[in-house]
Amino acid sequence: MDKNLTSFIDIASDSDFSIHNLPYGIFSETEDGKRRAGVAIGEHVLDLSALETEGLLTLEGGPYFDQPTLNPFIESGRDNWATARKTIQTLLSTNSKDLGDNQNLQKQALFKQADVTMHLPVHVPGYTDFYSSKEHATNVGTIFRDPNNALLPNWKEMPVGYNGRASTVIVSGTDVVRPSGQLKPHADKRPIFSPCQRLDFELETAFIVGQPNKIGQPIAMENAWDHIFGMVLLNDWSARDIQKWEYVPLGPFNAKTFASEISPWIVTLDALEPFKTSCPTQDPEPLSYLSEKKADNSFDITLSVELLPKNADSVTVLCETNFKYMYWSMAQQLTHHTITGCKVEVGDLMGSGTISGPTPDTFGSMLELAWNATKPVELSNGETRTFIEDGDTVIMKGHAIKDDIRVGFGEVRGKILPALEFNFSD
Amino acid sequence: MDKNLTSFIDIASDSDFSIHNLPYGIFSETEDGKRRAGVAIGEHVLDLSALETEGLLTLEGGPYFDQPTLNPFIESGRDNWATARKTIQTLLSTNSKDLGDNQNLQKQALFKQADVTMHLPVHVPGYTDFYSSKEHATNVGTIFRDPNNALLPNWKEMPVGYNGRASTVIVSGTDVVRPSGQLKPHADKRPIFSPCQRLDFELETAFIVGQPNKIGQPIAMENAWDHIFGMVLLNDWSARDIQKWEYVPLGPFNAKTFASEISPWIVTLDALEPFKTSCPTQDPEPLSYLSEKKADNSFDITLSVELLPKNADSVTVLCETNFKYMYWSMAQQLTHHTITGCKVEVGDLMGSGTISGPTPDTFGSMLELAWNATKPVELSNGETRTFIEDGDTVIMKGHAIKDDIRVGFGEVRGKILPALEFNFSD
Repeated sequence: MDKNLTSFIDIASDSDFSIHNLPYGIFSETEDGKRRAGVAIGEHVLDLSALETEGLLTLEGGPYFDQPTLNPFIESGRDNWATARKTIQTLLSTNSKDLGDNQNLQKQALFKQADVTMHLPVHVPGYTDFYSSKEHATNVGTIFRDPNNALLPNWKEMPVGYNGRASTVIVSGTDVVRPSGQLKPHADKRPIFSPCQRLDFELETAFIVGQPNKIGQPIAMENAWDHIFGMVLLNDWSARDIQKWEYVPLGPFNAKTFASEISPWIVTLDALEPFKTSCPTQDPEPLSYLSEKKADNSFDITLSVELLPKNADSVTVLCETNFKYMYWSMAQQLTHHTITGCKVEVGDLMGSGTISGPTPDTFGSMLELAWNATKPVELSNGETRTFIEDGDTVIMKGHAIKDDIRVGFGEVRGKILPALEFNFSD
Repeated sequence: MDKNLTSFIDIASDSDFSIHNLPYGIFSETEDGKRRAGVAIGEHVLDLSALETEGLLTLEGGPYFDQPTLNPFIESGRDNWATARKTIQTLLSTNSKDLGDNQNLQKQALFKQADVTMHLPVHVPGYTDFYSSKEHATNVGTIFRDPNNALLPNWKEMPVGYNGRASTVIVSGTDVVRPSGQLKPHADKRPIFSPCQRLDFELETAFIVGQPNKIGQPIAMENAWDHIFGMVLLNDWSARDIQKWEYVPLGPFNAKTFASEISPWIVTLDALEPFKTSCPTQDPEPLSYLSEKKADNSFDITLSVELLPKNADSVTVLCETNFKYMYWSMAQQLTHHTITGCKVEVGDLMGSGTISGPTPDTFGSMLELAWNATKPVELSNGETRTFIEDGDTVIMKGHAIKDDIRVGFGEVRGKILPALEFNFSD
């Protein structure tokens, strides 16, 4: 990382989108306009399809960026990822003749982020959600099962995960209707059909699969990192009351399939490289197929959740945590995912699971922050919350800083709309 | 249904592919050849793209059949499904001038099934597996939990289901490598990495979603049937020992994500119409959102599983059961799936769950047939099985008969190959 690298574009020192970042996204100038690929730089988006057209970003097998998803570029492989990053960084640097000195091209290729619409950056063929924060799993086990045996026996042996629903992965800014479904508020009575009464967020990150495997051919640990393209923020919206009633024995279903909301910019592993750190010590040592010799198998990424109530002037920061608390690494998740022969595909989204840290102000869900509704959280406008209410907007942010260099994710922002009305008698 | 309808093609009376059936599939003349849509008729495949080219099968918004999947045709809607069925049936009938009297076109458009390669009929964006046979759920609960409380409390209130892995849905005839993963054979020791020792099939059917919904907008019961295109057979391969260790609390994952194998021909609901029957009485009456006034909400479809051991001359019929045992209807499954706002997409595969009947010879998995390995099943060649061994081929079949009219699914056939070799120390 060249600390002295600067851009001809004015970039605030607290911008997530420094010249060291260059995250990929899909944008359009109007909501229904033509979708194509861009990178975020400061408050701008650089249109990569325009650079391709000008012959300034020529990749093996391309063009790739005049497309509604990043899948073709990602699929084209690691050499292209490296070439693209280097080329774009050079074009955006202070001494860039091709772009910095070309006002006409800047007019064509640079847009204010505030003026464009962001879309899902990839087509997501498959979505898997892991459960890899020990603190979160311990909190949930303590709340719902047994404080003395909070972690289930398999938790420290494997990165436990489940298949999510890819069709309802949505991009930041999409409103979410409060789900209705089956709940069972009274142990001695039948369930009822009702709007969810315990709607929650889950603060997660997710990685985007960059290279596939073949069915029946697991990805070995030593190759796993090479199959990962980058990361996004993920709010895995959850209906806790629906989940509680439905999840035994086959896992969460209706409680999680209504919306999984991601940030629009994919931050590449290359951009995160300077912020490497280690996962917590794993005890017991994992089985050999999950053994990771690499010490720097995690990233130091600060994550936070803010709540903006309806009509409120300002947000309340609900928690601040860090990706580095994750017990299992992304490589271990990917290897475990494929160990029985499961095929992963380019664009697959692999959620971390809720990321909680060791102290109450680092918990990544309302379930934990308000401790199953027993400790209401106070907001800056005087209101309190145990779960998410209609009109609330939840905003998740994430960034890494080292030696004054900042690489961030922007945000994933979602607002809850009131439940639909149904004409049912029960 | 016109019982007197006959075809100019010779069709054996026990063929699954009578002129009343006309199931859709995707075929190619050579393994790597051009994929396009066809219907099965007797021992033949009729090339629908050839009919389109000749102007004999013109659908609104088409052409649709010169494509590697059926998704565009299915997405085009119910009017086209009806027109296509009627047109193809007329072209194949005894008095068909356009095809029956046109030897040249027959040469171009009719292929022996034995001479072509079948492919996945649809791109499957999402795969969900339900658990809707009461007898199966009761058997599993009896074996693994408590014979006195075999059914969990939520089972009779909702069609319990979970998200499967769409990327490993494969077509009949694809060999399956025995999965390796984490098992825990000894309660007092750590898990081991090993080839699955309890590999099982699950006899299922699945329906193909024909029309999508929008995110946040559930499909009401009164519309649910209109969203279903047709059905296939499904062998939901399962690694019981991996499943047992991993599935609490988030459900099956590695145990089920290595292969879900389907029959190549989609039998439409139109073709199954004459075989309608009712689901078993539901007690308690489901909540209103799942209430189904329709009495004919199931189908009388005979299903069977055969096992062909390596080097054996003949199969052993392991079980014979019926789709009509399903407690929850497909419409109820679809409505429940979308009730919290989950979006379904054209081509989504919705598995029934293992279909077991009331008697031991109607159980749809080895787990149940050999009752958790306590009652080995005898094969016709003198061998026994508690689970599936390397080299075994499992063949599932299904058909409906009424008034001498037969509509069948053909088969889903899968062979188990030995596990990969790994170089791990544990």
